[in-house]
Amino acid sequence: MGWLADETGLEKCAANHVPLTPLSLLRRAADIHANRTAVVWKSTRRTYDEYAARVSCLASALGARGVQPGDVVATLLPNIPAQAEAHFGVPACGAVLNTINTRLDVDTVAYIFGHAGAKLVICDSALIPLAEAAIAAMEGPAPQIVEVVDEGFTASGRYLTYEDLLAEGHPGAAWKMPEDEWESIAINYTSGTTGRPKGVVYHHRGAYLSTMANAIAWRMTLFPVYLTIVPLFHCNGWCHAWMLPMLGGTLVCCRDITAKAIYDAIADEGVTHFGGAPIVLNTIVNAKEEDRRPFRQIVEVFTAGAPPPAATLAAFEPLGFNVTQVYGLTETYGPATECLWQPEWEASFGPERAELKARTGVAMAMLEDAEVQDSRGHPVPRDAHHLGEIAMRGNMVMKGYYKNPTATAEAFRGGWFHSGDIAFQHPDGYIKITDRAKDIIISGGENVSSVEVEDVLMKHPAVLLCAVVAKPDEKWGEVPCAFVELKPSAKVTESELIAHCRSRLAGFKTPKLVVFQELPKTSTGKIQKFELRAVAKLIGS
Amino acid sequence: MGWLADETGLEKCAANHVPLTPLSLLRRAADIHANRTAVVWKSTRRTYDEYAARVSCLASALGARGVQPGDVVATLLPNIPAQAEAHFGVPACGAVLNTINTRLDVDTVAYIFGHAGAKLVICDSALIPLAEAAIAAMEGPAPQIVEVVDEGFTASGRYLTYEDLLAEGHPGAAWKMPEDEWESIAINYTSGTTGRPKGVVYHHRGAYLSTMANAIAWRMTLFPVYLTIVPLFHCNGWCHAWMLPMLGGTLVCCRDITAKAIYDAIADEGVTHFGGAPIVLNTIVNAKEEDRRPFRQIVEVFTAGAPPPAATLAAFEPLGFNVTQVYGLTETYGPATECLWQPEWEASFGPERAELKARTGVAMAMLEDAEVQDSRGHPVPRDAHHLGEIAMRGNMVMKGYYKNPTATAEAFRGGWFHSGDIAFQHPDGYIKITDRAKDIIISGGENVSSVEVEDVLMKHPAVLLCAVVAKPDEKWGEVPCAFVELKPSAKVTESELIAHCRSRLAGFKTPKLVVFQELPKTSTGKIQKFELRAVAKLIGS
Ligand SMILES: Nc1ncnc2c1ncn2[C@@H]1O[C@H](COP(=O)(O)OP(=O)(O)OP(=O)(O)O)[C@@H](O)[C@H]1O
Ligand SMILES: Nc1ncnc2c1ncn2[C@@H]1O[C@H](COP(=O)(O)OP(=O)(O)OP(=O)(O)O)[C@@H](O)[C@H]1O
Ligand SMILES: [Mg+2]
Ligand SMILES: [Mg+2]
Repeated sequence: MGWLADETGLEKCAANHVPLTPLSLLRRAADIHANRTAVVWKSTRRTYDEYAARVSCLASALGARGVQPGDVVATLLPNIPAQAEAHFGVPACGAVLNTINTRLDVDTVAYIFGHAGAKLVICDSALIPLAEAAIAAMEGPAPQIVEVVDEGFTASGRYLTYEDLLAEGHPGAAWKMPEDEWESIAINYTSGTTGRPKGVVYHHRGAYLSTMANAIAWRMTLFPVYLTIVPLFHCNGWCHAWMLPMLGGTLVCCRDITAKAIYDAIADEGVTHFGGAPIVLNTIVNAKEEDRRPFRQIVEVFTAGAPPPAATLAAFEPLGFNVTQVYGLTETYGPATECLWQPEWEASFGPERAELKARTGVAMAMLEDAEVQDSRGHPVPRDAHHLGEIAMRGNMVMKGYYKNPTATAEAFRGGWFHSGDIAFQHPDGYIKITDRAKDIIISGGENVSSVEVEDVLMKHPAVLLCAVVAKPDEKWGEVPCAFVELKPSAKVTESELIAHCRSRLAGFKTPKLVVFQELPKTSTGKIQKFELRAVAKLIGS
Repeated sequence: MGWLADETGLEKCAANHVPLTPLSLLRRAADIHANRTAVVWKSTRRTYDEYAARVSCLASALGARGVQPGDVVATLLPNIPAQAEAHFGVPACGAVLNTINTRLDVDTVAYIFGHAGAKLVICDSALIPLAEAAIAAMEGPAPQIVEVVDEGFTASGRYLTYEDLLAEGHPGAAWKMPEDEWESIAINYTSGTTGRPKGVVYHHRGAYLSTMANAIAWRMTLFPVYLTIVPLFHCNGWCHAWMLPMLGGTLVCCRDITAKAIYDAIADEGVTHFGGAPIVLNTIVNAKEEDRRPFRQIVEVFTAGAPPPAATLAAFEPLGFNVTQVYGLTETYGPATECLWQPEWEASFGPERAELKARTGVAMAMLEDAEVQDSRGHPVPRDAHHLGEIAMRGNMVMKGYYKNPTATAEAFRGGWFHSGDIAFQHPDGYIKITDRAKDIIISGGENVSSVEVEDVLMKHPAVLLCAVVAKPDEKWGEVPCAFVELKPSAKVTESELIAHCRSRLAGFKTPKLVVFQELPKTSTGKIQKFELRAVAKLIGS
């Protein structure tokens, strides 16, 4: 390959090769943006200088307490400054960060503690009961608890506090930089939408490159003001905590995700960017009048986790937001495809525009490839019709599943990562998800995309949220069954909703049954269809 | 270091690891931006689809003609589409690109042909005589000539033309992607400002990461329109040809760099970005009235090569440009530091603003470190006073000098790349070049920055260009001697200019002698002070 006739003296050395790591980005920001605001939370405003100093304290204190390179340090934290600090402080002592979803049940947290083998867990006061219960329920050596006492909370008094831990460290301590960019930086458990969560391992290289890809996709320039709505425990907040120092940006924390908190941050802190599942967009659209605040900037919003319903987009954007749909998985460091907005599309409006916005998109700049493949691994025709599975490859794909080489090999078969998501490709290459492989409904031999049916239901003014799943049927094999949550004080009957769908969808796609109930959600806000399928199976038709 | 207790199954594989290379960026653009304009030149407008197809043709035709991976392919081309295509087509067949400066003398081109050992040279019709003369003068096997016949030119008839070469290739041919990102992608000879040019070798990794660093420093978002003023043969045009596909941008070619051509491109093509030496800014400032065109966008300009004189900046920016000074060397893929503009500085104006703009800057985002070091390799105090040498390290530093391991080892001593540029650091860390190590004047034991004296001379309304060098002096060791080019029809005497300096500078910094003459420049527009020093030595005082 591309080696010159004589490569003597052209080898890697300290001057010309440094392993890629997000730690470099913060180190640079601590110098260049020393006095710029890095983190904001309630009465706390920290500069990059202070941020980096606290990271040094954390790293050196963890080291002094016996955390060794390669050890796992867990967190059970909302989006507060300690969680951002852990993103740098834990790898800066050579350890691997395991941010645990704070909304999980005791059993799953116990499973993760045991599976990842955390030495220590940095835990918010409000989550101490969860951590304690999980420790009581777990197998293997328990992690030591360090308690973060957030503003307005009282320490339990039973554990070393985070501030006391930091006081044991040194603000000027040198960081352990990776010697190899393939070293592990984080382990993130999947949402568990389809079963037991899997431990997805990230490396320094991928984290670094993903930050660049996100910045490009989001059309970010210097000094963004980012609001942490996507939990930092979810795919490391889509790598955004790692990205911000690259651009000298400000991380605005948000502990409880309410419409009021979001509007306040936008108006008071000048937020320019945030990410959130479509359900968050919905929350903003349906905000109470007294919670809304006027603001002048156009806020750039990344949305992912599920395809944003056209009705949500149509109501959301005119409020002062510009939405870019992104798509990804825990396995791809969060977003890996983007619905890259072509300038020509600016002329579109109404349903046409919403349909364009609802596309799953194309590979981000640092992802090598994203395509829809048939069962033999060949790309499907780009005809907006043939279905297949989304496959991706490149530097934004995980190292693999922790302690699960079989699942890793299966996911990576044929040299591509297989997402389990069903989609087609438009003639211009844009991918459009129709369903998860496990969620697709096969009725009379025809594929029914649950997402398509949900999109139609969401257009009904009374519907707040909905999910469509397969219900076993003697004649058709499966038929669509809808579960619906209504807006407060809205009213609609089952037959009205079925008629609404029937007038917009083919007969075999129309739900045969509508159930009104609150929908079960994962802690990342996704609807747990496997539970609804169980319900649908039990209901007589 | 950061390896988990069990890393089984977490190794690199085709799904999760791809060597970094700019080729990936074009491959993606050819798909995602297929119908967007990639390259513009005269009556030619090519889409990304066409651009990539021509790159495939070039790569496969070169391969078929016997160019092997690791072979060197040279170019002698102005900024025309073939030069951009070579940036991808040559590495896409595994070969290494050697873009040669078209303004070099026969002797130097012969030296480069022999030293790099090019198999083939892609040469513009107008440069065939240069290539032929160099081949006649060179030692070792001569490169085969392929002639690019640009619009408005006539083929010599003696060589295979570039279009005929492309016709031998296949528009759908697969590219040879690097197996290792450390493979060589290009070899660039330094400007030769201080002597014989050195062959600087770039790898795919560095080229890839530099594109990202440049995009961030330039606050670029999607779809920039870039005018090629910096020659693509100079540090590969600061990596900009490689960068544009990442952002779906348009490369507007410019064969002859005149004020009229620049104004026309800005007005007609909507140019948003260009780079150029301060001398280019000067050309625009001094443009004839009939060559100027009105335009509405603010054009973002990178300037490097020498510090932009305050007087030039003050006249240039109000014309509709925003200047960011960058600094780098052939050894750092072009720009490696940027004068990152802090938002607070927006309030500055006049000389204060010009002084801020004239700072050499801070490490770009993908450079690990840039600092000023004393002779023992320790950072100098950040006091805007202590002088030292600019040293850099990281992934934007070359592999080394081709066939010169001794010079490489010397440049990389202590794990840093030593630039040979003398500077100080402001308290906020911003670096400010005072001189090249070889250009500094030591008068009566005091350091005199030639750049500082030049800046004062440039403020005189009659001065177009100037250079200050050391003249040997019995009493003081050295004294400053100024060489000055005047504006057309401007008049000023030696004693007037000395008085102008004396009123603004300390006595030992004031030139003792002023010589009026045209200044000798390198082909990258830099003044060759080593020639002027020879002149100064000969002149009696
Ligand atoms: N823009 C999007 N449109 C549609 N679906 C999306 C989008 N973004 C993400 N998703 C869905 O989210 C999934 C990734 O979610 P995540 O990694 O958090 O865990 P999960 O797949 O829900 O849980 P588990 O893998 O444990 O079952 C994707 O596979 C896809 O089904
Ligand atoms: N912004 C800048 N301000 C001042 N000087 C600059 C700036 N940018 C570049 N330079 C000068 O240009 C040099 C790099 O130029 P280049 O690599 O093209 O070759 P050269 O150093 O002029 O030639 P050679 O190394 O053969 O003597 C730097 O070392 C520096 O002296
Ligand atoms: Mg999943
Ligand atoms: Mg040099």
